[in-house]
Amino acid sequence: MTKVIAINAGSSSLKFQLFDMPEETVITKGIIERIGLDNAVFTITVDGEKQKDITDIPNHDVAVQMLLSKLTSTGIIQSLNEIDGVGHRVVHGGEVFNDSVVITEETIAKFEELSDLAPLHNPANITGIRAFQNVLPNTPAIAVFDTAFHQTMPESSFLYSLPYEYYKEYGIRKYGFHGTSHKYVSQRAAEMLGRPLEQLRLISCHLGNGASIAAIEGGRSIDTSMGFTPLAGVTMGTRSGNIDPALIPFIMEKTDKSAEGVLDVLNKQSGMLGVSGFSSDLRDIEIQSAEGNERARLALDVFSNRIHKYIGSYAARMNGVDAIIFTAGIGENSETIRAEVLNGLEFMGVYWDPTLNKTRGEEAFINYPHSPVKVVVIPTDEEVMIARDVTRLS
Amino acid sequence: MTKVIAINAGSSSLKFQLFDMPEETVITKGIIERIGLDNAVFTITVDGEKQKDITDIPNHDVAVQMLLSKLTSTGIIQSLNEIDGVGHRVVHGGEVFNDSVVITEETIAKFEELSDLAPLHNPANITGIRAFQNVLPNTPAIAVFDTAFHQTMPESSFLYSLPYEYYKEYGIRKYGFHGTSHKYVSQRAAEMLGRPLEQLRLISCHLGNGASIAAIEGGRSIDTSMGFTPLAGVTMGTRSGNIDPALIPFIMEKTDKSAEGVLDVLNKQSGMLGVSGFSSDLRDIEIQSAEGNERARLALDVFSNRIHKYIGSYAARMNGVDAIIFTAGIGENSETIRAEVLNGLEFMGVYWDPTLNKTRGEEAFINYPHSPVKVVVIPTDEEVMIARDVTRLS
Repeated sequence: MTKVIAINAGSSSLKFQLFDMPEETVITKGIIERIGLDNAVFTITVDGEKQKDITDIPNHDVAVQMLLSKLTSTGIIQSLNEIDGVGHRVVHGGEVFNDSVVITEETIAKFEELSDLAPLHNPANITGIRAFQNVLPNTPAIAVFDTAFHQTMPESSFLYSLPYEYYKEYGIRKYGFHGTSHKYVSQRAAEMLGRPLEQLRLISCHLGNGASIAAIEGGRSIDTSMGFTPLAGVTMGTRSGNIDPALIPFIMEKTDKSAEGVLDVLNKQSGMLGVSGFSSDLRDIEIQSAEGNERARLALDVFSNRIHKYIGSYAARMNGVDAIIFTAGIGENSETIRAEVLNGLEFMGVYWDPTLNKTRGEEAFINYPHSPVKVVVIPTDEEVMIARDVTRLS
Repeated sequence: MTKVIAINAGSSSLKFQLFDMPEETVITKGIIERIGLDNAVFTITVDGEKQKDITDIPNHDVAVQMLLSKLTSTGIIQSLNEIDGVGHRVVHGGEVFNDSVVITEETIAKFEELSDLAPLHNPANITGIRAFQNVLPNTPAIAVFDTAFHQTMPESSFLYSLPYEYYKEYGIRKYGFHGTSHKYVSQRAAEMLGRPLEQLRLISCHLGNGASIAAIEGGRSIDTSMGFTPLAGVTMGTRSGNIDPALIPFIMEKTDKSAEGVLDVLNKQSGMLGVSGFSSDLRDIEIQSAEGNERARLALDVFSNRIHKYIGSYAARMNGVDAIIFTAGIGENSETIRAEVLNGLEFMGVYWDPTLNKTRGEEAFINYPHSPVKVVVIPTDEEVMIARDVTRLS
């Protein structure tokens, strides 16, 4: 039995989950927030209870030291030697990484090169990696990429209709994200269906504050809705998804913003927040819509309309689909959105059961038994995928 | 019997087609090119033969005078009084015009206001309108809009996931284009199918140098691939169609271009030209692809992949489809593209016949008789739609 910790480091946060492997038992998990700001918050589950400390944590090195001290002081582990491996989420693996990888100075240099493609994420991920290296220099570390699963997309899927040199010179192409999640739920769907993944055509809908859809054929991603960045694709909490690219210069002129300023609006003030005008949180919007707020109703319609159409397009991509998967916060919990997305797909063999669709947050089939296309809700688990890759590669 | 002339005025060109109505017989047609440049070219068909004159034509007023002189001097008409109405194509009708309209000073003022949305097209269209007013001041004139047919789209289709104020304040929404063509072929498809348009779900693929797809339910456009401008949607000859909007600032930085400069690349150096690297003309690309050019092959794959996926997404939009329509230069003539687009749609009931698919440039069904979804090639005729609206409204 080995202990493995899965890490997701953001610019001011560090999420962790400690596993016993290969049993995949979660020993503890938590998050450190507001690193480098006043009043950092350290939340950890000890003996099934959440403990919260508020203190100053100047940087990721200190955060990791505190985390490891906490693990030993609470008796969760007796010694740091018990940690057999650390798995780090790294957002962007570019075209270099089509699988998880053992972290070396060479791979870190590559993550840095790829920071050009993910300027907000990769540097933060590297900070987390360095912090663990400082404290656990001899423990194997593995990087698990959001993009790797989508590296199987064929060129006709990932290439934009732009001057080809842009791809060769600047790496401009569709990368796709949420790969670890799409991979997890596709594998789990095959198990639940009792069929080999190799024989399945799956459409995976990862619907959280960020949202992406993937077409997965024989276990391989062949298309996905996010693009060069996580801005593209469907409507999200605050992100616009696809728009007419000609709108960017138009909005720049109308609002007197720079291109970066417009991009900021597209990332942070658009999506369901932009349409509803009051919230990016689907739960708020559902409540307001039920109370008759028309803009809330419209936000739900726009969101589900976009996902519905992606399902049709990915069914066309694979000449049909065996199962549609819903995962992540909204996908796992929103009966309303699942219903709106699934309504009107009978033409392709989707028959869903409104009673089963009431499920929340657990694995469940929500199709009628006779439905040729199965519909399944699967809570995602990116952390266990990281832990598995640590076990496999270290 | 009345004579009606359909006009499509560009910034340096003027296309015309003279009809006998209501028989819809084409009496003559032609084009005046390079207006305002050296060596303008006036091409007209007289007695079934093309005549070409090269001369200087300083502006649209002179172009229209020459055209009308030619019509009388060749005996095509005896007197200008025979022209009972003029129909002008106007690209952008915004949300103001959901049908063709009799041109007055008031409507022209509205076209001018809408020039903000179509700065390249509406001013040129207005120039054409003014030129005819100067020469035929008492002849009824009608405007026919590229956008009007799509005004039936519901808000959940036309609204972008942007701050809602952008819609209210700046008119930012999906308008869609090629409306006159989509309307023509949808009506014609219903006639060919022998079924009432009101009962049909149609997907119309207008594939020319510009390309757009429309979902037409009961004769009403409910979604279309072009957007705020004709740049959005599928890959085109030189236009990119949809890309990740975050690419615009990225390309600006990498290539040291302004937002307008990048937009120019997206409009003029992208699409099949960008991917193939040598041509925007599908015929060149098909030839090179057949000779083993991989980038040509890739351009075909990217183009047909995008259209294929739109068909799936619009089938989902309508919970199935009764007929798929191919029109415009590529749609009417390219066996290869139709085949690639249609391959792998059996899941939704599309069975097409490779022998029938060899058809070029004429109305034909290309599905197998047993195919639940019909597939039909229909040469588009925007001019006759203009002439019909002149007859209906003047």
